[in-house]
Amino acid sequence: MKFRLKGMIKLSREVPEAEEDLERFFKEAEEDILRRGVPGGQEEEASHVKSWKLEGDRIIIEMESGRRVRAHEGLLRLKKSLGQLLGPGYRAGVRGMSVEDYTLEMDAPGVSEIPGLGELPFVEEAVVADGKIRVKFSPLGESELRRHVVDRVVKHALNLVESSAGEAEGTETKDLTVKVTKATPGEVVARSREMEFLFHGEPTEEAVRLGWVKKFPGRGQWFYGPQITALHRVLEDILIEGIVKPLGFVECLFPKLIPLDVMNRMRYLEGLPEGMYYCCAPRRDPETFERFKNELVINREVPMELLKKGIKDPGYVIAPAQCEPFYQFLSHEVVSAEDLPIKFFDRSGWTYRWEAGGAKGLDRVHEFQRIELVWLGTPGQTEEIRDRTVELSHELADELELEWYTEVGDDPFYLEGRRVEERGIEFPDVPKYEMRLSLPGRDKGVAVVSANVHGTHFIEGFSIREARNRKIWTGCTGIGLSRWIYGFLAQKGFDTERWPEAVRKRMERVEVPRILTWPRVE
Amino acid sequence: MKFRLKGMIKLSREVPEAEEDLERFFKEAEEDILRRGVPGGQEEEASHVKSWKLEGDRIIIEMESGRRVRAHEGLLRLKKSLGQLLGPGYRAGVRGMSVEDYTLEMDAPGVSEIPGLGELPFVEEAVVADGKIRVKFSPLGESELRRHVVDRVVKHALNLVESSAGEAEGTETKDLTVKVTKATPGEVVARSREMEFLFHGEPTEEAVRLGWVKKFPGRGQWFYGPQITALHRVLEDILIEGIVKPLGFVECLFPKLIPLDVMNRMRYLEGLPEGMYYCCAPRRDPETFERFKNELVINREVPMELLKKGIKDPGYVIAPAQCEPFYQFLSHEVVSAEDLPIKFFDRSGWTYRWEAGGAKGLDRVHEFQRIELVWLGTPGQTEEIRDRTVELSHELADELELEWYTEVGDDPFYLEGRRVEERGIEFPDVPKYEMRLSLPGRDKGVAVVSANVHGTHFIEGFSIREARNRKIWTGCTGIGLSRWIYGFLAQKGFDTERWPEAVRKRMERVEVPRILTWPRVE
Repeated sequence: MKFRLKGMIKLSREVPEAEEDLERFFKEAEEDILRRGVPGGQEEEASHVKSWKLEGDRIIIEMESGRRVRAHEGLLRLKKSLGQLLGPGYRAGVRGMSVEDYTLEMDAPGVSEIPGLGELPFVEEAVVADGKIRVKFSPLGESELRRHVVDRVVKHALNLVESSAGEAEGTETKDLTVKVTKATPGEVVARSREMEFLFHGEPTEEAVRLGWVKKFPGRGQWFYGPQITALHRVLEDILIEGIVKPLGFVECLFPKLIPLDVMNRMRYLEGLPEGMYYCCAPRRDPETFERFKNELVINREVPMELLKKGIKDPGYVIAPAQCEPFYQFLSHEVVSAEDLPIKFFDRSGWTYRWEAGGAKGLDRVHEFQRIELVWLGTPGQTEEIRDRTVELSHELADELELEWYTEVGDDPFYLEGRRVEERGIEFPDVPKYEMRLSLPGRDKGVAVVSANVHGTHFIEGFSIREARNRKIWTGCTGIGLSRWIYGFLAQKGFDTERWPEAVRKRMERVEVPRILTWPRVE
Repeated sequence: MKFRLKGMIKLSREVPEAEEDLERFFKEAEEDILRRGVPGGQEEEASHVKSWKLEGDRIIIEMESGRRVRAHEGLLRLKKSLGQLLGPGYRAGVRGMSVEDYTLEMDAPGVSEIPGLGELPFVEEAVVADGKIRVKFSPLGESELRRHVVDRVVKHALNLVESSAGEAEGTETKDLTVKVTKATPGEVVARSREMEFLFHGEPTEEAVRLGWVKKFPGRGQWFYGPQITALHRVLEDILIEGIVKPLGFVECLFPKLIPLDVMNRMRYLEGLPEGMYYCCAPRRDPETFERFKNELVINREVPMELLKKGIKDPGYVIAPAQCEPFYQFLSHEVVSAEDLPIKFFDRSGWTYRWEAGGAKGLDRVHEFQRIELVWLGTPGQTEEIRDRTVELSHELADELELEWYTEVGDDPFYLEGRRVEERGIEFPDVPKYEMRLSLPGRDKGVAVVSANVHGTHFIEGFSIREARNRKIWTGCTGIGLSRWIYGFLAQKGFDTERWPEAVRKRMERVEVPRILTWPRVE
């Protein structure tokens, strides 16, 4: 990998008298500041000043590097020391720097084309020829250099090369989880004994037929009537008593309208931006809203252009992960390892996902209820808590006479944004377990518990600190209440008399009002 | 009030041979179809065909009317009978109609100017002169005529005239509630005895200081920590046991993402469109989202233009009223009065309001928890249930040793959209009671219960029917859990030992994790 850079360092005034000192400075830099942190034997890979010259109040500079201290990084490193030379000695300062011309060349044997590379931000041109890739960047200012845009392009390019090469060789691109961690997605790690299923229909159809739910006009949304709500509350109590309380989780109320900035720090926006609902607050624009109201009142149709004029750019999403506020709550705080773990849970409302494939039944909804457990601890604590949430879920499902299995999950949501950038984040060996309830007649069960350890992903993203810089990790377990209900109904059916004792004894009689036209009888 | 219309009726072919029959038809129409429903003595106000002539396959017609069977309504009435004449007799049909020229003249003594009138949709010109207003409409097609846009403009114009006249005379525009119903907003109808206040600080500040809450970055949003959440759950149980269960409400889970169409049928969009969060689903546009991700990953800033390209027009709001799904659930259903009332409640998540004035403390938040009771019944049942929810709230507050008062509420949300259009909706005498907990040192308490009877407002909007067309009404009572907590803390403070017995005996010990840097000590 070869970086070649032509750049400029802007000074506060002309300093022809500094020519000799500068000559010495650049020579010494190659042995010192441009070499720091480079492992022995890899000096060739470090930044090298190929040429420089003074032109008025500018230093025109050419640099080259391999993988270590990339040329732009080298240029940035020069700034401070250069200031220390020119300030006291010549009463001059460094005002800024920019890169006019920057190319990256890297090997890509057997690759003839890399789709998407030329379209990356800051990439002016990308050419693949003779087993090499040549990327030419557009001109870059100092702030872009400092924001590491080049490194992220490089990382992304490497990923594209890797997947192109893989495809060229006919091998599959490796699963993200496998690449990032040591786990094998899909591996079943635990399984219940077989259970007798009491129902063999399709639960959604039956629930609609019996009037337990009614379709709500929004995609993937349902109105949950008295009977299914009663079951919901009973299962909620059982899950809290069986899993949440024994593990000492403390309840909080997590906000569910999440500012984009928080989602960005979670690296969720770069993972699944097409899977969320975006929210806009109204502007303070009484005139537009007055016109909006008049048009609406008279026309009875929502005047969309006026509405769009009246609202701001999207500033929020409705919580897709439910644990977002926990990291935000801890952001920039300092904890002591002795006080850990911190264990909170939330069950304060709906969370939302937009399903591209279209939502169908009660098992794949856009709006759902979960009990979300989320914690902060040492790596050992974090993994142990995760494992305990899964074990207790197993025990509870046994008590409820449900058939289940648990597998290693693939592509946890927080890895999604991970394809491109490497921040030296630590990952657990197994990032995710997923427990599923079997569905009669179907191969794949419905996922009811998703238990994750995130390593330092959110610790880094939200700048959470341990007082003496000891390692801290986070984890979360989502208990999908809406999914438990689906799985329960799929296995046990709608005849409450036949339900397992553990549920039946808690169910109170539900009065269902009579409506002449609903539920509709076929 | 005088309407003058020049219009055209389009036929399927030329029918010169029908001239005589048409002459008879229009003459008879004035005594028959154009006169139906007009009270005796008001025949002058009905539609009158001033002239007509055949021009090829068109009938060019001039009509005039007063207030009864307005000219455009008269034109619409002609269509069907005309078809019945031309079809069998002449093998011709009526293809459509339109109005080229339509004016309304009405008295407005003492009014010299009506702001806003000329800007209304479908108004081409509005002139005020000599104590009269002359409104000229833009050309109207049949679908606009059928959608009653003219009637709504007229209604709106009348309102504008009325308020302009009021201002001209120096009288206040009357409160909407007073205008529409018989209640006097602000009248206190019940009040507790005085209670001793145990706290005299500002609850929000104290809650922040003690770490019971932490500001969340979204406007008007908070992270609610373990202690306040424990209080939340205790009060929730108390309220459900004390108000909800004794009145026989049955729990359902109401969706909280409400399609615009549902909000429109509630007449909420024309009431308070500036008070809601609007939501957009993503488009199916993988290419845009791919670019979005790349830019975000490399630039670390949300590429707003790409995001806006990737999402659809706003299609939802996040529920501001919480009761929306109830009416939607019943929409187009038929109930029998014998089976009423239907009483549901929901406590499944957050609801949201955008506060233009800016949100400050825990008393005026954008995101809050409520227990929402909503019912359908005969008018008598509906009012009785409303009253019972208020009475039980009083009793409960007494038990909790809280000081409170209840007043007649003003401008209930469902009246908001009512300014313009009159649909012959029935309203209760008192549409809304609002119960408030006193705030030490402040004149106005915090509203904790809002109990509404909507008359036929939602019955009409959602086409809910009674089998034999007997009167049915709806009502709803919002129990503002977040507000109860605020009022409770304001009166009783943060020392749990001094809290009233009814609360104290239910509180479990809450473990609060230690964080070195939070809550911050001044």
